[in-house]
Amino acid sequence: MKVEETLRKIKESAKIVDEFIFSNFDKLHKDLYEASLHYFKAGGKRIRPYLALTSYKLYRDDIERVLPFAAGLEVLHTFTLIHDDIMDNDDIRRGLPTVHRVWGVPMAILAGDYLFAKVFDLASKADVEPEIIVRVLRVLSETTITLCDGQAYDMWFEGKDDVSVDEYYDMIRKKTGALIKASAEIGGIVGGGGEEDIRNLGEFGEKIGVAFQIIDDVIGLVGEEKVTGKPKGSDVREGKKTLPILYALERLEGEDKKFLMSILKKERTFSDEEIEKAISLIEKTGAIDYSRELAKKIYSEAIQALNRLPDKPAKKDLRELAYVIVERNF
Amino acid sequence: MKVEETLRKIKESAKIVDEFIFSNFDKLHKDLYEASLHYFKAGGKRIRPYLALTSYKLYRDDIERVLPFAAGLEVLHTFTLIHDDIMDNDDIRRGLPTVHRVWGVPMAILAGDYLFAKVFDLASKADVEPEIIVRVLRVLSETTITLCDGQAYDMWFEGKDDVSVDEYYDMIRKKTGALIKASAEIGGIVGGGGEEDIRNLGEFGEKIGVAFQIIDDVIGLVGEEKVTGKPKGSDVREGKKTLPILYALERLEGEDKKFLMSILKKERTFSDEEIEKAISLIEKTGAIDYSRELAKKIYSEAIQALNRLPDKPAKKDLRELAYVIVERNF
Repeated sequence: MKVEETLRKIKESAKIVDEFIFSNFDKLHKDLYEASLHYFKAGGKRIRPYLALTSYKLYRDDIERVLPFAAGLEVLHTFTLIHDDIMDNDDIRRGLPTVHRVWGVPMAILAGDYLFAKVFDLASKADVEPEIIVRVLRVLSETTITLCDGQAYDMWFEGKDDVSVDEYYDMIRKKTGALIKASAEIGGIVGGGGEEDIRNLGEFGEKIGVAFQIIDDVIGLVGEEKVTGKPKGSDVREGKKTLPILYALERLEGEDKKFLMSILKKERTFSDEEIEKAISLIEKTGAIDYSRELAKKIYSEAIQALNRLPDKPAKKDLRELAYVIVERNF
Repeated sequence: MKVEETLRKIKESAKIVDEFIFSNFDKLHKDLYEASLHYFKAGGKRIRPYLALTSYKLYRDDIERVLPFAAGLEVLHTFTLIHDDIMDNDDIRRGLPTVHRVWGVPMAILAGDYLFAKVFDLASKADVEPEIIVRVLRVLSETTITLCDGQAYDMWFEGKDDVSVDEYYDMIRKKTGALIKASAEIGGIVGGGGEEDIRNLGEFGEKIGVAFQIIDDVIGLVGEEKVTGKPKGSDVREGKKTLPILYALERLEGEDKKFLMSILKKERTFSDEEIEKAISLIEKTGAIDYSRELAKKIYSEAIQALNRLPDKPAKKDLRELAYVIVERNF
């Protein structure tokens, strides 16, 4: 796989997408304007627009047609980041203070609302058949409903002791899979792909998203600091209920389970040795192997869905995108 | 004017609208579901759906066609109420604790987001020509952008000493006028009204909204407690910068201006006598007369726009709705 070339292509498309977003921003009250633009200026890969553009290219090359939707997917993603950061009380995003840290919670809520409205504003003005706009509108609104529901479950899990692996899987499918699924689907819809292609694109996107999340969970548990930028076991220390941790909780018993639970609940400060001990308890349940295998299985299902799509140069780009997102992290 | 009959008609349409909203609610995480439904269960007149339905009836009688949009306008309004209540830190709405007081700020943000997504979900599934859906989509998204901008100015005014009457007028046009304007327009668009009718409906709606707000400002200043449920001068006491107060600030000088400013800034607790003194200072500038005259002028422009619409029974209903909203409060 040519990772460098794919990264270059993603960067190129990001430039086009950003130009489109910046030039379509509304004249607004200064604070609202700056708060809404903050994360766009702070970086980010623009993976979702690239996925939409590349899916579109399976069918057509005139990307101006799909640009308002591709850009809209990034705008939608950014809206969810701003609101999620308030809900999760996060201070840093993309190396900068979060929107609510700079402008306060009220303005951050409003910036998210503006961006969400902008998604539909861009869609409504796209130079595309009205039937297609309505179809995309349905995908976008249903997807956002799914994202909200996923976030509700994620917040609920924080205070819940007995989250099952199945519940967690369903949550990440909603919270991480849904928007990547929508990105691939929308590229296919605007491109004019058939129903089966759109279904396969959706399956490809969703599974890439879920596989990525599971790999990310594994890295958050056993990833080395020099790779992740965070000390090993940071997810355990932060009390996150990720897939391998939940898998282990379903299997641990007695004192071992109690010990892990006490760390997750942050009952006190735990030493590095205790965190190491927790990680090795988790590993002994087979949680890491299980998670890696599951991610591989889902990833290979994504590639199977991709294989059923028309053989166009863009298909190779989609495969390499999947590799960049997921596989090179195995 | 037959106020009772109009109120009965509004109630009847509210029942249909609520049934539509409740039966189209999504299966969601329990907390998100309940938080999102909270204000619908707490009452409210459903003025915006009634305005959309009645505008539609200028052209057609098969209201099922316009129902997803009419209901969507109430859903959109409710989303803004939930988020505004967080931003304004309000505790009570429609006699019940606000959403964020019951479920916390994160869930309230999410409930608003869900409802906003639901607006577009309902629109995308309406049994109406795609061209019309796209046109409504444009109105809904542009209107929400306007609402966000209005709210940004409203928040900004709180900390600003020299808000002009013109700035304030522009803010209420955005924050209160825009959605009522959109409600009337959307009824006309889905009904199939011509461009000039849609423009007149929009002007009618916007001006009714703005006139209502100005009258509300006057009542908040000089309304008697037995009518408003709040002590006389409550807006002064709460430091609100409403139209008559800003008009007076532009005209008062020296100690009088300083005195009013110190109340608005809540520099200390003020006695009832001091509030009375402030009100009479405001009255002496002619602020109340100016505001009442302005509201009357805007209201009569709204009625002029209404008069240019086709002579159908629904036109009488629109006139009576305007009366119920604005005129009987003069």
